Amino acid sequence: MEIKQGVQFKIAKPITDSLIRAFAEVSGDHNPIHLDDEFAEQTRFGRRIAHGMLSGALISAVLGNEFRDMKIVYLSQTMRFMAPVFIDDVLTVTATVTDVRESKGIVTLETTCINQDDVVTLTGEAKVMILP
Amino acid sequence: MEIKQGVQFKIAKPITDSLIRAFAEVSGDHNPIHLDDEFAEQTRFGRRIAHGMLSGALISAVLGNEFRDMKIVYLSQTMRFMAPVFIDDVLTVTATVTDVRESKGIVTLETTCINQDDVVTLTGEAKVMILP
Repeated sequence: MEIKQGVQFKIAKPITDSLIRAFAEVSGDHNPIHLDDEFAEQTRFGRRIAHGMLSGALISAVLGNEFRDMKIVYLSQTMRFMAPVFIDDVLTVTATVTDVRESKGIVTLETTCINQDDVVTLTGEAKVMILP
Repeated sequence: MEIKQGVQFKIAKPITDSLIRAFAEVSGDHNPIHLDDEFAEQTRFGRRIAHGMLSGALISAVLGNEFRDMKIVYLSQTMRFMAPVFIDDVLTVTATVTDVRESKGIVTLETTCINQDDVVTLTGEAKVMILP
């Protein structure tokens, strides 16, 4: 696989109730906005939403799986949570190479999550270093 | 709880092999640097490391649990992965309030992960909005 500007990696992932509950267990984030229908009904969203960092975990999967044959180091990630992610949404998570610094092996990627209605739920940027 | 500059929230979390494997399952990130001893031995780290985004998930837990009685929205998170996290490290994850914009309910927090040897493994910044 050649890593150059414009190359895209992508997954589509259904956000199920059980995925959200599994993420709550692994992370330890038991905020009721993710887990408690009654609490969530009283928020501006009107129902439970996925953890923002669950979308982060999916970005990790896109990068981790696409670069799995290389030795890479995750340098940084920014994330802006633009819109809520609800149960039964299907997120398309995309990482697009925007810059390659050959001399240092540093690759910059634009990372986005978009739901089934084409609403952008997350924007951000990842930097990874590819080791020789 | 009063949210004002300087207030700190903190957890200590052991990074076990089973936690890393559970995070791989939930995220779908099966990069061998996290899961495969033989592969990891050939990297600069010499052994398996935790997913960077697992530290992100722990930041989510600190915020999600400390603000659990309020209605909060996660606006953004930045993360720089400064040093690797190994199996059996104990991470102290701290979120320190650095700014409160009362008018908009926006709270900025410095987020850090530090291991048992006082090595900073992650630095970053979170922004959350507290809803009325």
